[in-house]
Amino acid sequence: MKLIRFGLKGFEKPGVILADGSIKDCSAHASDYDHAFFSSGGIERLRAVVKAGELLPDAPAGVRIGAPVARPRNVLAIGLNYSQHAVETGVAIPTEPIFFMKATSAVSGPYDSIEIPRGSVKTDWEVELAVVIGRDARYLESPLAARDVVAGFCIANDLSERAFQLERGGQWSKGKSCETFLPLGPWLVTLDELADPDNLSLTLDVNEKRRQTGNTGDMIFDVWFLVHYLSQFLTLEAGDVLITGTPPGVGMGCKPPEFLKAGDVVVLEIDGLGSQRSVCKNAC
Amino acid sequence: MKLIRFGLKGFEKPGVILADGSIKDCSAHASDYDHAFFSSGGIERLRAVVKAGELLPDAPAGVRIGAPVARPRNVLAIGLNYSQHAVETGVAIPTEPIFFMKATSAVSGPYDSIEIPRGSVKTDWEVELAVVIGRDARYLESPLAARDVVAGFCIANDLSERAFQLERGGQWSKGKSCETFLPLGPWLVTLDELADPDNLSLTLDVNEKRRQTGNTGDMIFDVWFLVHYLSQFLTLEAGDVLITGTPPGVGMGCKPPEFLKAGDVVVLEIDGLGSQRSVCKNAC
Repeated sequence: MKLIRFGLKGFEKPGVILADGSIKDCSAHASDYDHAFFSSGGIERLRAVVKAGELLPDAPAGVRIGAPVARPRNVLAIGLNYSQHAVETGVAIPTEPIFFMKATSAVSGPYDSIEIPRGSVKTDWEVELAVVIGRDARYLESPLAARDVVAGFCIANDLSERAFQLERGGQWSKGKSCETFLPLGPWLVTLDELADPDNLSLTLDVNEKRRQTGNTGDMIFDVWFLVHYLSQFLTLEAGDVLITGTPPGVGMGCKPPEFLKAGDVVVLEIDGLGSQRSVCKNAC
Repeated sequence: MKLIRFGLKGFEKPGVILADGSIKDCSAHASDYDHAFFSSGGIERLRAVVKAGELLPDAPAGVRIGAPVARPRNVLAIGLNYSQHAVETGVAIPTEPIFFMKATSAVSGPYDSIEIPRGSVKTDWEVELAVVIGRDARYLESPLAARDVVAGFCIANDLSERAFQLERGGQWSKGKSCETFLPLGPWLVTLDELADPDNLSLTLDVNEKRRQTGNTGDMIFDVWFLVHYLSQFLTLEAGDVLITGTPPGVGMGCKPPEFLKAGDVVVLEIDGLGSQRSVCKNAC
């Protein structure tokens, strides 16, 4: 099943996207794709409705697509999880997952504009596989147990202002949390339709030039390890978004470095998860 | 006005605490102290109710006190904001605020147990002034403008597992986000009752031994500067919690270092903001 949300930012309705590309309004069956939905078996309830062939209204044609989950309680992020990206950023390959956080206010839709922050000269791209948590979890016993607490997957662009992140006082969150710095979607594929997230191609193009190419099979720490690992340090909650690191090809790694500017078009794709397309503009 | 929340964790009701220490139930006038409440002028509405002398029901005697705000959308944190604390941790005094984040799942009540995480041997204390944001804000023009977006203040204990934070792979959030690692409260004092947060004494005792003594006047970057500064990097949202750094005297800075263990009693006080008292126990 592919979950999708549509409508104005902050007022999205929950829906599903069918094999023929049509978007159905599920707001009669779910108030939103949020903590309550995931933690109460919402996916199973909705799947039963869709399977039963119940008539669902169409979403309005041309409606905006939002992030496929409601505002998460936390955006959890992993850094330097592909060896070649660690190499291009000039740091050692991590021996344990590097964990940081993004402000939840950074979440935006898959086709929304990316806002270049005021004063930014180093806004960079990062295609990543995002994992959506399906159940509250703490101290998971093994990576295998992590399968029980994952709701599904979607595309994320982990936008990063490198000067804010690396040159303005120590911790990464400062360059990771700007408004629009986390486009998610277009849809969330539930675990039953994408049981193996460990062999997915990822690509990112800027102005039709291929910049990033990777495969989730090249992750240093795979999805199940990461979910298990993080649960040893904090309580994962249903609806939380975990982004899992980016393959090589970011702007910071270009020689000379290249960064996003107003007018640039960024396209991201991951096998089975659709594609994002965002146009950059200056924050006003 | 002093806002307080009472009831079982996750099911708290909003209330006020009066000058005589009695707690009144305000749930007829506010669903919770959350984004909707703060951003819609909830404080002013509630103040009018209290001023009018409207009869409010008493909270049940002996009821648990929760954090004085609902789950924030983000917990924003500043590191090393008192020079002497920077000195004791052996790092340079920052030239710009050091920003990091804590998972929102770390929030707990002012008298709840502090859970020592599994595998922890370096759980440390940090008394801090917490600022609650009252209005969404981005690109504030000046520190002066920050006054318009602050709802009030409360006590925070920014618990920190130093091995997780500093020895397990790079970014601080890993040691800052464990369950119960952010006791808040007991109450939120609104800005009109505490207009000057720049001259407040803070103390923290462990087992009746004074460990931390400080004054918010010693902050390197004051509250108004911090709110203005952060708004240049991300969108602050009503109900967000910003913790502003800790004075010297943390366990990591003791010679030899000392850390919390099950049975320890931690008491925090800040002028006008009451006191917290937590007993440590091992996470099960």
